[in-house]
Order: sequence, then structure tokens, then C-alpha cells
Amino acid sequence: MSNKYTIVFRAEGNEDRVVTAGETILEAAKKANVPLDAPCSGNGTCGKCRVKVLSGESESGQTRHISREDYAQGYRLACACEIRSDMVIFVPPSALAYQNRIKISGGEREQAVFSALREELRTLGFTGDSGLEILGLTLSRPDLGNPIADRERLLMALETLRGEGAPPLGLSLHAQRKLPAALREGDFSVTCVLRRGAGEDLVLNVFPRGASNPVIAGLAIDIGTTSVSILLLDLLSGEPLALGSAGNGQIRYGADVISRIIESSRPGGLERLQRAVIDECIDPLIRALCRKGGIDSEDIYRAAVAANTTMTHLFLGVNPAYLRLEPYVPAFFEGGTLRGIDTGLFLHPDAEVIPAPGIGSYVGGDITAGTFSSGVYKKEALSLLIDLGTNGELVFGNADFLMSCACSAGPAFEGGDISCGMRATDGAVEACGIDRETMEPALRIIGAAGQKPAGLCGSGLIDLIGELFRCGIINARGKFIREGKRVCRDEWGMAGYTIAFAGETETGRELALTEGDIDNFIRAKGAIFSAIRTMLVSLDFTVDSIEEVYIAGGIGSGINVENAIRIGMFPKLPLERYHYIGNSSLSGAYAMVNSRRAAGKVTEISRGMTYLELSSHPGYMDEFVAACFLPHTDGGLFE
Amino acid sequence: MSNKYTIVFRAEGNEDRVVTAGETILEAAKKANVPLDAPCSGNGTCGKCRVKVLSGESESGQTRHISREDYAQGYRLACACEIRSDMVIFVPPSALAYQNRIKISGGEREQAVFSALREELRTLGFTGDSGLEILGLTLSRPDLGNPIADRERLLMALETLRGEGAPPLGLSLHAQRKLPAALREGDFSVTCVLRRGAGEDLVLNVFPRGASNPVIAGLAIDIGTTSVSILLLDLLSGEPLALGSAGNGQIRYGADVISRIIESSRPGGLERLQRAVIDECIDPLIRALCRKGGIDSEDIYRAAVAANTTMTHLFLGVNPAYLRLEPYVPAFFEGGTLRGIDTGLFLHPDAEVIPAPGIGSYVGGDITAGTFSSGVYKKEALSLLIDLGTNGELVFGNADFLMSCACSAGPAFEGGDISCGMRATDGAVEACGIDRETMEPALRIIGAAGQKPAGLCGSGLIDLIGELFRCGIINARGKFIREGKRVCRDEWGMAGYTIAFAGETETGRELALTEGDIDNFIRAKGAIFSAIRTMLVSLDFTVDSIEEVYIAGGIGSGINVENAIRIGMFPKLPLERYHYIGNSSLSGAYAMVNSRRAAGKVTEISRGMTYLELSSHPGYMDEFVAACFLPHTDGGLFE
Repeated sequence: MSNKYTIVFRAEGNEDRVVTAGETILEAAKKANVPLDAPCSGNGTCGKCRVKVLSGESESGQTRHISREDYAQGYRLACACEIRSDMVIFVPPSALAYQNRIKISGGEREQAVFSALREELRTLGFTGDSGLEILGLTLSRPDLGNPIADRERLLMALETLRGEGAPPLGLSLHAQRKLPAALREGDFSVTCVLRRGAGEDLVLNVFPRGASNPVIAGLAIDIGTTSVSILLLDLLSGEPLALGSAGNGQIRYGADVISRIIESSRPGGLERLQRAVIDECIDPLIRALCRKGGIDSEDIYRAAVAANTTMTHLFLGVNPAYLRLEPYVPAFFEGGTLRGIDTGLFLHPDAEVIPAPGIGSYVGGDITAGTFSSGVYKKEALSLLIDLGTNGELVFGNADFLMSCACSAGPAFEGGDISCGMRATDGAVEACGIDRETMEPALRIIGAAGQKPAGLCGSGLIDLIGELFRCGIINARGKFIREGKRVCRDEWGMAGYTIAFAGETETGRELALTEGDIDNFIRAKGAIFSAIRTMLVSLDFTVDSIEEVYIAGGIGSGINVENAIRIGMFPKLPLERYHYIGNSSLSGAYAMVNSRRAAGKVTEISRGMTYLELSSHPGYMDEFVAACFLPHTDGGLFE
Repeated sequence: MSNKYTIVFRAEGNEDRVVTAGETILEAAKKANVPLDAPCSGNGTCGKCRVKVLSGESESGQTRHISREDYAQGYRLACACEIRSDMVIFVPPSALAYQNRIKISGGEREQAVFSALREELRTLGFTGDSGLEILGLTLSRPDLGNPIADRERLLMALETLRGEGAPPLGLSLHAQRKLPAALREGDFSVTCVLRRGAGEDLVLNVFPRGASNPVIAGLAIDIGTTSVSILLLDLLSGEPLALGSAGNGQIRYGADVISRIIESSRPGGLERLQRAVIDECIDPLIRALCRKGGIDSEDIYRAAVAANTTMTHLFLGVNPAYLRLEPYVPAFFEGGTLRGIDTGLFLHPDAEVIPAPGIGSYVGGDITAGTFSSGVYKKEALSLLIDLGTNGELVFGNADFLMSCACSAGPAFEGGDISCGMRATDGAVEACGIDRETMEPALRIIGAAGQKPAGLCGSGLIDLIGELFRCGIINARGKFIREGKRVCRDEWGMAGYTIAFAGETETGRELALTEGDIDNFIRAKGAIFSAIRTMLVSLDFTVDSIEEVYIAGGIGSGINVENAIRIGMFPKLPLERYHYIGNSSLSGAYAMVNSRRAAGKVTEISRGMTYLELSSHPGYMDEFVAACFLPHTDGGLFE
């Protein structure tokens, strides 16, 4: 049912958006395409959709997310505030979903990872293997006695240059459209970008011949449930040009893949979700990367996309409904090779877009790509890959066998479902210690010197909870058992730890971790640990048999494994067996876009990997419940 | 420069369109996207852009196109009426460019042509050769022990069905999107549409298995400068499903290809022209044909497009500027094979769209396709193909050689540039006789019994002018030399012949052919005849050596060759050597869409054909001037 009131949404730097529909402000915002952040899907639990009512009736119960002062000023949770009159709503930046917060860097920080991978690809013989090349040539000029058309003139010259035995040549429509001007600007000297194909080689682009060669660029795209990361790179050198990340615009339809699948089955939902990730997130990111890298979208000839199974379905506009219905069957494992124009991405219309293949409903291309980039598939040692995303995915095995499974960790490791959570970008607390005596914290914050804290990313959360537990400030159930200046309690009695006082933060609001946040986190870490246990038990292995552990995911620049073990998130193993490998899904996509053979290897990995469906596995639920303590109900596991 | 006045365009059955730009009403109409008919590009000569000013200042000189009564009522030529105030304009149907007048038929009338062609293709062995086929199959149902994804389940079953040695299989994204629902609706029994390819076969579509097989449809598309014809057909049987035609929406940018090329070089012009023919004309026609044929656009898997060189460039969005600049070089001869999604056409995104190859700036795919369908390329007899379009194109030769050339006849044969002209649709006078004594006409009109005349199509024009000349009503220069009730003169002294009085016509307005119209027609027929002569002379042949003449073009259901010879349009040859073959460009496209080998044959023809550039040929201009009489300055040619 829709109301008949007019709702105006106002945000800094944006035009007003007006709508006359919706039962609540959150619903109206969805219809007005205002991307309010609502990872809890509007249940009133996350407190992210905090807006300010400038005019109109707005009685709604005060909640723990809105202080008395803020309530008096007109702040409301959009999900809890019914529409009973015309309204004007101010949307503060903090309530806008992630996609407005694109971050671009030169990729300096990650340069080391990609350098190592490039070296690795070279060792494996997977280089210079994108199928793309540059050819320069000079054509005869047309005259009345030689009025051959531009296309045929070019193709004949290319055939002569390439000699006999070369495959037949085609000209992409994009290049055809540019050809007449390019030939005449370059006085019939041109530079072509060619792609070798199975049956036919294709001229993808043509430029008037000049001083510098055209760029052959590619994209490695990692689509996470919560955030999206994209690397723009030079495909001839493998050199990163720019790296960017943004929140996944789908987050306003819910934080986890199940909410997204449900939304996609509503009328128009599939298209809405596809638009939310492509138009609002991936394409703006690509534009920003192109600006940073100084290239045009037509220079991007190849892209690899690694994502979980639901995200891959939504990216391609394929209905994911059957992923959550027994027997949990995806619409596809392998997406084949698509053309740019099919995907709606902002790149060359004839670009090759290659989704990394998935192997099950909840183990997707992000994991097969990550299995490649972690190297687990070719190790002798029994190795465990843990990818900490909104879904936690695990791969266990070595060169002889690979098994994988997935668990729903929720978005806590990426800062979701945590009142003070945020992604690992500027202002995020990425590490922290606590003085046992004074209970005073010491924070390490992402960003330039002097950066004030704005929230906690995954690694900061693990540290903070580990330290709170180590210092005896919270107990095994995550409840506060010490009092002090840093321990606050709200009017409902919920306790929290003040990480930074209002005057010390980026936002000017106090930064605190509540018992509710700790609850959410404990469920997330419990899901991970119980999945590890269940998979090992199903294979008749014990935790001790794990020889190497690779931790992946966008939880921060690193992870304090000691604290992660202390809180029962990871098994108790010698610390040197743990390796943090960053975003392995993105690294895998980087390998796939660089090299056709690497992409083929990822497909090979996916075809050989076994999938363990945890949701129907007996024993998993018991393991999960047992793991929802600090560190575990079976403390012996961590001694 | 733009005005600041608000101009409202009102037309029956349409919403008002409002604009605040333009020096004249015609310019404002272009900006408001109101498709006013203006084949003379706004020179005030054609009189087609006659609109009625409902309010606003509208002083403009009265012209011969507007009677005193009409002027008093507010009728003006949109091209001649400057904007000096806010205005409200009524656009009568007669002023709307052709694209609003889509005509659809079951193709019964043309059935014979296509039946004959189908027989011909069979004789040539060009049947069942579109590369498309239908396969039905039943898959195993998924369960927890067999959770293979839908795509892999389908492809594995297809591979088993096709057996070893079959090429690898892909699944189009369109089919992938439909697959999950199709499998479950059909209880895992499905029917697939497959296309055999060079390297890989592709599943293009998938349906739940039901009582009837899916349709495999194709389109033969003929894009003329003035009008567009499209045949929808069943590719398995070759049977026509529906035939339609519409005016080319580009006509408001000028009647001939030169005006279009000039318009395309203005900012945004190329896209405007591409949109005018695709969005306003071809796509609406395809939609209408789909309705008539009872199929969906996704059922169209293949299309062949035959058009002159400029139209093919504009259709593909390729800049045609260099076509009119020495040395007159097209951007391409062969357009390759395009995908539906590349062209923006309303059909399966993975459909194959095949432009017929051209051979020069003014001899395009319409002629190479027509050379195939006329059979000239395989005759022993020396044959002449005359395609009467806005450009007149000629092919002369036989199985041993083929030469072609083009001349700018203007749109007269399609009813353009003639005040009472129209396309060969309902209401068009397609044949006519005149009684030498009484000067009374006898008309044959296209349409159901009782259809009143609305205008003259090409064949009617030839008849009328031939009869006026035979009866001594006009002289060799096309001037009236008899008086009578049918001979009228306007206030400027321009004479005309009244074909039907106001009360007898469809429109309620008098139907008359003026000396101005006859002038335009004489230039058109003179262009054709002089081109024939110039080409033959250049090959050292005389007119008598022509053994067969094939007349093609959308000038009516036929053509009175005797009258055409009488007025000096065609050479004087025994009548039995003349054959009217209708729209040979459309027939050629029909062959190409039916058969890959036929399409290959058209390419072969195009590569072997010689192109004679008339515009730079010495002698052509003299021939043309000599031919601008009835029948010719050298009367001996017609005795």
C-alpha cells in the first residue's frame, strides 16, 4: 500500500528527490532511489538509517539508536518512522549507503601483492597471454583509381603484414565507427588493437598513429556482498594503474545474500539489484579509475569478475531464487565469456568479460579465484583458506584434493551490523590495544597522520574484542563485567566500551562498541570456527593437521591472529602457520584478466573442487552453538 | 540562434509537444521531435510541411502551396513561417513524415514473389541453411546428491544427445536468464534453439517443452532513402509471416542521401539519423510485424539488411561524410556479421545481423542483393537491372561480368518532390489512362473497392505524364499546351492537370499534377536514361544490345513500360524484354536471411562487380541535359 503524501529527500550535494509512496521513510527512500543504508533490512536493529525530519509529522518511539537530544532535533530511524503527512527529510552522509563513498588509490599499498602475483604468473608461464596485441601500419591513400573502402583497405594491409597462415580478421563495430576519422587524422598511418580469437582475430580499436602507443587496459573486479573492489591495470605490463573500492549499492536491500535473493524475486527486483551494483557502484568506480589512470573506457578490453554465487547471478541479471531452495542449485557454475555490451559495464563493447566459475550455491567465483591466488591448489602442505566476507568461505586441501564450504558470517567482518563498524578505509580503527589497568585504548587508524577515528573495521573489531576479553572487561558471553570511565550504559542498561569520546572522533559523535555489537560479532566468529571444525571432521581430520592457513578478505591491512585465536575465531595453531593474503578474490581476478591460461586454471580448479553443503550437514548447528562463546564452550580447544 | 518563444505542436492522437527553440516552425518541429515531412529540406519547394497556426503571429508570404482560403484559415508552410511569438500549431496527418504511416499486410500480394524465390533457392541448393535448429530434450532432475547447476546440466545433456565430434557448446546470456524458470516450468524437459557457428555452437533460447515448437523467425530488411520495407519470415519453412513498410523517418532531414550526409556531420547528427531510422521506423515496424505474425522479438534470430551505402552507414552509426568527398570512399564495403544487441534492433540480442555488402559510394547492398534476386549474375543474356529508388542504380552484365552505376534520380519515383506524390500504399493512383478527346482520366487506385484517390505513386506518375504527352496536353518540355476543365492555372500562371476534384478524393482536397511536378519528374527520368546510356557507351555497347531488362523498386504494383518508353525514361526495346520484379533489394535480403550460402553468394557478387562513378565520368552531364525532354532531344532514339 502506498501513501498519498509527498516526501522530499534532501542530501548535501544532491538535488532533492521527491516521491509519493511508501509506508515508512525507508520504503519511500527506496522508491525515490535514495540509497539509505539499511543492512538489517529495516528491522530497526542496526541504526544506520538515521535521518533528520525537517518538516512533517514524525512520532515514532525513541530507540537506543537515537539519543534524547537527537530525537528532539528530529532524528529518526527511517525504517521505524511511519508516513502520516507530507515530509521533508534531510539525509546525513552517515545514512547514505556505501556507494557514495568511492575510494580510489594509486594502489601503492597493494603494489607488493600484485608484484608478487605478477612474479608468480611469470613463474607459472602465465604471462603475455591476454590475447591482445598492438600493431602499427601505414596504408596506401585512396584516390579515384583506388577507391577501396576504409575497412577493406585496413584489413588487406593487416593481412599482408601478418603474412600467410594468420587467422581471418574481423573489425569490431566500435573500431569501424572510429576508422574513417582515424585514417584521415593519421594520414593513413594507424595503430590497431587486435585480439586473437578461436576462429577469427578481431580488430578492437584503431587510432591515428602518434607518438605513444594506445593503452591496453583490463579490470579485475571483486564484487562482495558488502563492498566492491576494482583494479585497473595495464595488460601489456601487468602493472596496476589504479585501485578503487566502494560499498555494494545493493546493501539497502539487506546486508546478506538471502535478503538480496528475496528482494530479487519481487517484481522488478532482479533488475533493481543489477542496477544497484552496476549503475551505482561498478560503473562509477570504473569511471573514477579511468580518470585516475588517465585512460578511456574504450581502452579496457578485458575484465575478470570474481564474486560469490549470488552476486555473480545478480551481476548478470540471472534469477538467483533457486540458490536458497532445496536442492540449492545455481543457474550456472561457469558464466562463459561475455562481451562488454552484454554486461552493461563501462568498457569497450567488445571487451571479454569473464566471470570466475563457482562450484555451489554459496561457494562462488571469489573462492575459486582465491584458491588460485593463494596457491592452495598446488601446495604439498594441507592448507586452509579462510575468506572473511559477509559469507565466510573455506577451502581445505592441497594439490591432491580441495574441499570447500560456506557459512553465513554476516557483514560484521566488513563493519556491517556493528553500530560503530565501517569498511577498512580512512578513519577506520584497524588495530587496537587496551591497558589492563587503566582500560585506556591505543588505536591504529587508517589514513594520513592525524586522522581521527570514524569507526572500526574488521581487524580493529577482532583486536578490540580480544583485548576487552584479555583484560577481563567482558566475560565469555561478551557481557561487561568491569566498570570505569570507558564503560558506559544506556537507559535500557545495555553496556558498551567508549573507544573515543565525541570530541576525539571524525564525526563528532562518540565511538562505542556495545554488547549488541559484541553479540553480532560472536555469532560471526562462531560461524567461521564451527565451519572449520565441521569440514575437518567430515574429512576425518583434526584441527592440528592444518599445516598452513591463508586468511583473506577486506577486514583491514592485516589481522592480529593472536587475538583472533584468543576469542575462538581461528583454531589454536602456531602463529607462523597463519598468513594474511588480503583480497584473494581480487588477486585471483587479477591473474585471470592478465592471462587466459590462468583463467583456464581457475576453471580447472572449480571443476575439481568438492562442495560441502553445511546447511544440510548434521552436526553443524551444534558446532555453531558451542562456538558462540569466548573462546568456545570447549575451552580445551584453545589451551 | 534560438528563440525564446514557446511553441506547442498538436496532432491527432498524440500528446502536445512543447519546445522553445527554432527560427522557423520547421526548425522548432525538428527540435521538438515532431516528424514534419520536408523532403525539400525546407527550401519551400515541396509544399509538404503545411501546418495550421492555431494561435500566434504568423505572417509569411502566401505561396503556390497555400490557397488564399487556406491562408486565411491559418495554413502556412512550416519552413517559411518565422517564429515571432508564442504559437500553437496544429499538425495535420498530411504533414507528418512517413514514419507515422506504418502499413502491415499478411504479404499475400507478395507471396508469389517469395514463393518463386524460395523455389529458386531450392534449385540453387540454398535451403535449410540458416544455421539454426531446434532440439528437444529431457534432463535429470537435481537433488541434494546431484546439485549440478542448470547451465552445466543442460549443456551436458545436449552434448550427450549430439554425440562425439559435435562442436563445443555455449549458452547465450539471454537463454541463461530464461533457463532456471524454463527448466522448472517444463519439469526439466526443454526445447532449445541452437545456432551452428564457426568455432562453437550456441544455445540461443530455451523454452519449457510444450505442445508446439518455438518459432525460428528472421527478418529481411530493405532500408530505402524514402521508405523501409521489412519481411518477417519463418526461417525453417521460408514462409513469409508478415510484410510491412513505413517511410524512412530521416526524411525530415532531407529527401536525398546528400542532405542526410550533410545532416550527419552536424553535432549529434549521426546519432539523430540513426535513431530516426531505427527507433522511429525499423523498430516500430518490427513490433507491428511481431504482433501480426504472433511472435516475440526474441524469436527473431537472424536479419539481413539491404540498403544503399549511405543508409547502411547511418544504420550502423558510421560516419558517411567521405562518401561525398572525392575520392568518394565508403567506410566499409562489407559490414561483417553483427549481433542484434550491437545494432539496437528489436530482436534477439544474439541474433546475426548481416548487412548486404556494397561496392561503392552510391552502389550499396540494395543493389548487390538485387543482383542476386534478379538472377542477372548468372544469366547468359546481357541484362540490365534498373532499381528505381531515390537513387537510381543500374547493373549491366551477365554471368561473365557485372558493371554498376548510380544516379541521383531524387524521390519522384517514390512520390517525393511531387506535390500530389505518395508511396505505393492505399489510395495511391498506380495506373491511369486519359481520353484524348475529353481529357478525362481513368484511374486505378491501390486499396479496397471504393477507395478514393489520395495521391500518385511512381507508376501512376509515369502513366499520367505518358498519357498527358500522348494526348498532346503537354509538350516536350512538360508545359501545358491544351486548355480545358481539367487544366487549371494558379495565380502565378503555373498550369496543372486536375486528376480528381476536391469532392472525389480521400483528403477532400483537389488532386492535381503541376508543371513543377512534371519538371521534377523529367529530371528524374532523365537521370535514369542518361545513366543507362553513359554506362553502355563506356562499355562500347549500344542500347540495342540489352537482351533483358529487370525493373525493380517500390514504384507500384507494376509499371506501364510503353508509357515509360514514350516519355524517354527507358530505352526503346521490344516490350517483352522488360520484366518488373518488385523490390529486388528486399527479395535479396530474403534470400540472405534464409541461407548462409546465399549471403555468401551476394558477397561474391559484390567482390566481382565493377563500379562506374558517373559523377566524375565525362559525358554524363551532356547525356543528362539531352534526356531532360519528352522523350529526348534526340527523338530518333525512341522511333
